[in-house]
Amino acid sequence: MNVDIGNALGTVAQPGISRESLERLDDRVAAAHDRIERGIANEKFGYTALALPETADPDAIRDAVAPLADSTHVLTVGIGGSALGAATVAGALGVGERAPVLDNVDPQSLHATLDSLPLSETAVHVVSRSGTTAETLANFLVVREAMADAGVDWTDRTIVTTGESGPLRSLAEEHALPTLSVPEGVPGRFSVLSPTGLVPAAILGCDVEAVLAGGQAGRDALAPSLFDCPAYAYGAVAVALERRGAHVNAFVPYAERLEYFAEWFAQLWAESLGKDGMGQTPARALGATDQHSQLQLYRAGRHDKLVTFVRPRERPDCTIPETEIEDLAYLGDTGVGELLDAEFDATEASLAAARQPNVRVEIERLDAANLGELLYGMEAACILAGELLNVATFTQPAVEWGKRAARGLLGDIDAPETDAITGKERLVVEPDRSG
Amino acid sequence: MNVDIGNALGTVAQPGISRESLERLDDRVAAAHDRIERGIANEKFGYTALALPETADPDAIRDAVAPLADSTHVLTVGIGGSALGAATVAGALGVGERAPVLDNVDPQSLHATLDSLPLSETAVHVVSRSGTTAETLANFLVVREAMADAGVDWTDRTIVTTGESGPLRSLAEEHALPTLSVPEGVPGRFSVLSPTGLVPAAILGCDVEAVLAGGQAGRDALAPSLFDCPAYAYGAVAVALERRGAHVNAFVPYAERLEYFAEWFAQLWAESLGKDGMGQTPARALGATDQHSQLQLYRAGRHDKLVTFVRPRERPDCTIPETEIEDLAYLGDTGVGELLDAEFDATEASLAAARQPNVRVEIERLDAANLGELLYGMEAACILAGELLNVATFTQPAVEWGKRAARGLLGDIDAPETDAITGKERLVVEPDRSG
Repeated sequence: MNVDIGNALGTVAQPGISRESLERLDDRVAAAHDRIERGIANEKFGYTALALPETADPDAIRDAVAPLADSTHVLTVGIGGSALGAATVAGALGVGERAPVLDNVDPQSLHATLDSLPLSETAVHVVSRSGTTAETLANFLVVREAMADAGVDWTDRTIVTTGESGPLRSLAEEHALPTLSVPEGVPGRFSVLSPTGLVPAAILGCDVEAVLAGGQAGRDALAPSLFDCPAYAYGAVAVALERRGAHVNAFVPYAERLEYFAEWFAQLWAESLGKDGMGQTPARALGATDQHSQLQLYRAGRHDKLVTFVRPRERPDCTIPETEIEDLAYLGDTGVGELLDAEFDATEASLAAARQPNVRVEIERLDAANLGELLYGMEAACILAGELLNVATFTQPAVEWGKRAARGLLGDIDAPETDAITGKERLVVEPDRSG
Repeated sequence: MNVDIGNALGTVAQPGISRESLERLDDRVAAAHDRIERGIANEKFGYTALALPETADPDAIRDAVAPLADSTHVLTVGIGGSALGAATVAGALGVGERAPVLDNVDPQSLHATLDSLPLSETAVHVVSRSGTTAETLANFLVVREAMADAGVDWTDRTIVTTGESGPLRSLAEEHALPTLSVPEGVPGRFSVLSPTGLVPAAILGCDVEAVLAGGQAGRDALAPSLFDCPAYAYGAVAVALERRGAHVNAFVPYAERLEYFAEWFAQLWAESLGKDGMGQTPARALGATDQHSQLQLYRAGRHDKLVTFVRPRERPDCTIPETEIEDLAYLGDTGVGELLDAEFDATEASLAAARQPNVRVEIERLDAANLGELLYGMEAACILAGELLNVATFTQPAVEWGKRAARGLLGDIDAPETDAITGKERLVVEPDRSG
C-alpha cells in the first residue's frame, strides 16, 4: 500500500496542508505512534486489533470450517462490525456473490435472501460477541426455522463466532457446533482480521493466510513518521484536513469488488471518530459510477470534503470489441480496465484543478495479501486519527440510548428513553386532498 | 407521502428552524412554486420532469417491451441517471434481483454479472441519451459479444432508450430494435418516471401504470405552501437547515428495497444542488443496519447533518420464532418488521434527544403507487431546493472537465485538461522496507 498526499497540499488544494504544517504534525504522529506501540505491547483494549495479524490463528479457522467445506454458499448473520468485515473480505476476493449477509431486520429482504440460497449447501455463520444482539438473533431464529422447513439439519450447517460466554456460546456448546472466538479486546469494527471477518472466505476456499500475511506487512510498516508510513500519512492528513474544514470523507474505491470495503471503512471511521462534536462523515461512493452522480458536487460544492481514492494499480482486463459505430472508434481495442483507469486519472486531476483536496490510496493489485495490508492500514490510520483528535476511538457510547429505547418499546426493559418516543414533537405535512 | 418536520424545529434541534422562520420561508416557497408551475406549463428545460406523470406514455412502453415479455431477467446498461432510476424502481418493487445494472467499467464485475445471467432469457436495456456515453457503449459492446459467444442473437434481446438521434438511435434503426425515447427537456437524474426508469420493471411484469399514477398524485399535491405540500416541506426544510449548517444530508431508508432509492436520491441531490460552493453532501445509509455503523457519528459528531428517514408505515411482516434462549424471550412472537419499526422509532428519538435535526418522510406502504409518489415528491423537493438556493438545478457543468481529460488520455481528442494529469503534484508515502 502506498498513499499519495500530493493533492492534499496547500499548493494544490483549499483546504490544504503546507509542508511546514506536515513537519510539525509529524512530531505528534511520532508521539501517537509511541502510544499505539505501547497499547499493542500492553494488550490495551482496542490497540490489540493491531496485533491480530500475529495473534489470529488461521489453523483454528481452518479446523472450525472443515466440516462445512462442502458449502457452496455462506450466509453471515451479524450486524455492523460482525458483518461488514466478512462481507468486505468475501467481496474483495471475488466470492461475494456466494457470501451474502443478513445484517438488517427487514422481513421482505430476509425471505428474498433465504429463497435465493441452496440451504442444504449453505453454511450459516452467526456472529455476535454478546450473543444477545437483537437483530442477529432474530434473524438466526428465522434462518433456523427456514432450514427446518427445508428439511435441513441446521446443526450440521451452522458455525458460530462469539464471545467466551453468553447465550450464543451456550447454544453452540449444547449443539456441539463449530465455534470460534471473537478476539478479546478488539471492538467489532476492528475485527476483520479474525474469525469475524475471515470465516466465509475460508469456507469458500480463499487464502486467508495470505490476508493475514498482508496484515502483517501492514504491521511491519508502522513507523514513527508519516513520511515513512502510508497508514499514518493517511490518518494524519485526514485529521489535518478535518481541522481545516474537510468535515466529509468521500470514500471512492475504483473497483466494484471494493464496494463493501467502502461500507466497512464508513463504519470504522464514523463509529471510531464520530465523538465530542468531531469526526468526518464518511460518504461512500464508487468509481467510475459515481462520477455520474457525485462528481459535480465534489468539484463545485463546498470545500468541505476530503475525497479518498482507493485503487489497485493492476487489474485483469478485457478488451472492448471493435465497433462499426464511428463515434466510438476510439474505444476499439482499449481495455475496459484501461478506460476505468483513464477515468480515475481524469477524475483525480479534475478535483485538483478545482482545488478540492484528495488523497490516493493504492495497492499493487486486488488479491488476498494486498487486501490484508489495506485493511490493516486503514485500521492503523483510524487509530492514529483518534490519537490526534484525542477521542475514545474504541467505544461507541452514543448508540446505547437508542438500544435501550428500542428494548423498552419491545417490552424487555423499563427505559426512560422510551418515553421520549411518545413525546415526539410533530409537525406533519400532508397533501391537501380537499381541492 | 407525508413529511414530519417536527424534529427540524429549533425547539428540538440545533441547527433547527423556528416556526417564524418557516412562515417567512413560506413566502419564498410560494414564489418558487409559481416559477415551477410556469416552468412546467412552458415546457422549460428540467421543469418538464414534473409533467412526466402526464406525458409519459405507458402504452408505448408496453408495446416496446412486448417482444421481450418472455425475459426472466433484464440487464440495464447505462450509468448515472440512465441506470439509477431503473434500478430504483425494480428494487423497490421487489424484482431487483432479476434486474441488475452495468453502471461501471470494471472488467471483473462486468464478467461476473454476465456469468450470473441466463443470457438467452435476459433482456438488455441500453440507455444513453447521446448514444455516445463511453462507459455505456463499451459495456454494451462487451455484452453483445458475450451474447454472440453464447449463441444468442443480441438483436432479439435488446431494447434501446435514447435520444432522437445519435449512434445508438442509428444502431437501433439498423437492426430494427424496439426503441423508446428519453423524454425531451428532462435531465437523466429526473427521468425515472419515463422509459429510462420504467422499462425493466415493465418487462418483469410490474405495474408501471400505478407508478405513474402515484407520480400524478405527487403532481396533484404540489401547492404554494410548504405547510400544504410534503415535497416542498422537505425541500424547504433541507435548504433552511443547510443555511444553518447542515451541510450533510444523511439519507436513511428503513427498507432494504429502498437501498437503490437512496443512491438515486444521492445523485438527484448532489448533481442538482452541488453548485456555486453550495449543496448538501448526501451520505447514503440504511436502517436498521447503519445504526451499527453511522449512528454514533450522527448522535455525537458535529451538528452539520440533516438525517432524512424514509419509511413505509405498513409492511408485510413475519414472526420471529419462539426460542429456548432466555435472554431473547422478549423477541418471541414479535414480528421482524415490528423489531425494525421499534428500532426506527428509537433511532429517530435518539437523534432528537441529542438535538440532531432529522426529518421523517413516510409512505403508506412500499408499492408501485406509493413509490411513484415518493419519487415525484423527491424530485419536486429538489427542484424547490434549487429555486431557494438559486442554482442551475438542471445542469452539471463540473463533470465536463474530467470527461474531456479522459477522452484526451484515450486519444480521442486533444484536450488541455489531459496535461494536468501528467503535471500532478506527488507526495507518495511508501512503506520503509529497508528495516
